Amino acid sequence: MREEGLEVQVDQIGNVFGLWRGLRECDHCELLMGSHIDTVTNAGTYDGAYGVIAALECVAALRAAGVHPRRTIGVVAFTNEEGVRFAPDMMGSAVHAGALSLEEALASRDASGCTVASALARIGYRGETKIGSVRTSAFLELHIEQGPVLNAAGAGIGVVSGIQGIAWYEVELRGEANHAGTTPMSNRRDALVAAAELVLAVRQLTVGAAAISAATVGSLIVGPGEVNVVPGVVRMSLDLREPRPERFGTIAARVDAAIAAVVRATGVEVTARRTVHLPPIRFDESLTTQVESAAAALGCSTMRLVSGAGHDAGLMAKIVPTAMIFVPSADGLSHCPGEYTPAEQLVDGANVLLRVVWQRIRDG
Amino acid sequence: MREEGLEVQVDQIGNVFGLWRGLRECDHCELLMGSHIDTVTNAGTYDGAYGVIAALECVAALRAAGVHPRRTIGVVAFTNEEGVRFAPDMMGSAVHAGALSLEEALASRDASGCTVASALARIGYRGETKIGSVRTSAFLELHIEQGPVLNAAGAGIGVVSGIQGIAWYEVELRGEANHAGTTPMSNRRDALVAAAELVLAVRQLTVGAAAISAATVGSLIVGPGEVNVVPGVVRMSLDLREPRPERFGTIAARVDAAIAAVVRATGVEVTARRTVHLPPIRFDESLTTQVESAAAALGCSTMRLVSGAGHDAGLMAKIVPTAMIFVPSADGLSHCPGEYTPAEQLVDGANVLLRVVWQRIRDG
Repeated sequence: MREEGLEVQVDQIGNVFGLWRGLRECDHCELLMGSHIDTVTNAGTYDGAYGVIAALECVAALRAAGVHPRRTIGVVAFTNEEGVRFAPDMMGSAVHAGALSLEEALASRDASGCTVASALARIGYRGETKIGSVRTSAFLELHIEQGPVLNAAGAGIGVVSGIQGIAWYEVELRGEANHAGTTPMSNRRDALVAAAELVLAVRQLTVGAAAISAATVGSLIVGPGEVNVVPGVVRMSLDLREPRPERFGTIAARVDAAIAAVVRATGVEVTARRTVHLPPIRFDESLTTQVESAAAALGCSTMRLVSGAGHDAGLMAKIVPTAMIFVPSADGLSHCPGEYTPAEQLVDGANVLLRVVWQRIRDG
Repeated sequence: MREEGLEVQVDQIGNVFGLWRGLRECDHCELLMGSHIDTVTNAGTYDGAYGVIAALECVAALRAAGVHPRRTIGVVAFTNEEGVRFAPDMMGSAVHAGALSLEEALASRDASGCTVASALARIGYRGETKIGSVRTSAFLELHIEQGPVLNAAGAGIGVVSGIQGIAWYEVELRGEANHAGTTPMSNRRDALVAAAELVLAVRQLTVGAAAISAATVGSLIVGPGEVNVVPGVVRMSLDLREPRPERFGTIAARVDAAIAAVVRATGVEVTARRTVHLPPIRFDESLTTQVESAAAALGCSTMRLVSGAGHDAGLMAKIVPTAMIFVPSADGLSHCPGEYTPAEQLVDGANVLLRVVWQRIRDG
């Protein structure tokens, strides 16, 4: 950022802003572009970093062409989008957008008990810029799709209309641990049999007229977990996604009903705690159309889609007009070393971003 | 054993024999009684130890009464019945009965790499008595039931007709790990959904006309096991029990069919490896009837039942006429600190054992 002549500001949660100062003396950006540079364990190359690097490259290209914006253009790398070490994810953008308090975020601890505050201080990124003081009229995030939809459709640019709603639950099923050889089947309250029923019931939420778009049990831990012991307890996660607000609104009742049916059928006690509840986000239609037109003008094939994953843009959409640009992910792979987007598609995505920011500067 | 005047012999796998020498010069015992004194982690008081202590008490009672057996009476504590630290379980009786080679048993390693041979040497129990050199005409094991059957029936003494067959499998289900938000349901090969189908299919083996007596998935591990990642791999155990040889013989084909149905329905790859295959054991009818008569003569209520758990007696039954006596387990609890049998019932069990050994001495 400094090499490109940007003024760097690090805010109190470690969000890194690079400001290309406009001709007018005004802190309020015309457009903020960016994503995040943290990643997951055993990750790929593109998730997050691509959107920050491309935004910086857009500024470099415009500066090289002798452009002087009237209002400031910003590039941002948000803190801890992935939430791998510290919960919650999308931490930096959530604090910036006022959806999470700075105090709560700084107090979050990793598995070893270290706080975000001390981890930021240690790496020199507990900045002094006040949260929310870098304001903008719009936010635009370029990102890899992390799914197979664009590739399957043969589209080069994804015009993201919004982010589907996400609900997470932690479910605990309590039966009775017992000897697998000596306990008659009729005397058992097997927590894993109940969990298996629930795994299949949850998958059924994605089938039929009122289907939600995705349901996943990603984590399931059995106790005591020995070959010859009837499982006494299972702890499992639910991850439910749906873009349509009216269907998203039915999820809690449908999870309750699925659990009640399992309790009735098995006699196992079940408790569920909702840990994440992010209703569907719709991006700004005007900015989204601008992305679509820019892609078309550059000769890229486009496709409208809803993001399956959460993004910083989802938080930014709460406070300013926001849009997202996707490029395809080969085989839909992400969060793994096989994550890949061909260079031409990466350049296409950056050029769409460049065209939109240039239009904003020209018309701003 | 030494306090009771028994000659102690420790064999090459650490089995401890206490020999009450008979009047005749003969190493071949009239009757060997015993069980094991190893136990599980966080165990109860009675499993195993009760049968060894009671056998020793029988010898003490007979000696105190001035009995002199013609032929030797033996008490045994077999090595490593539980298999907690070293596999396989029932190690000492398996080696004694020739079902497991001494070399293989001594080479078995614990999680830290220590062998049975070195662990036995360290505690001074790598004995010199040759495997199988302590021979006997019959074996009798007294043990707690470890299940709820006797208690539920209100019976004081269980006359054990045999041990149900046990088959264990390690099953691996390989799907494809992927992003839980961005991967359409139709593109998924979710290893946990397939595993849930298999858990329920396995339970179905215990229902209907050809039902087997018990089926348990006790261990199930999900990879990568993160909330927002579609499970790519599941490793799970199967524990299947059945006392009737003809039904036990159908288990392999029925497991294969259940797996094939899951593969067809889900597209997940499944491999299964059978790790334990112990066909049902029937105990000696004559010795079993002797136990039943002894209990009746003592005024105990009896019940015939099949053992759900494996026991050293199951191995001994391969080489000599064998029987088992059970006493009730309160609430069917075992392998936990709540394991409990009231003192009167423990004494009843020991008296049944005493009466049988006394009859053998008298008639021998």
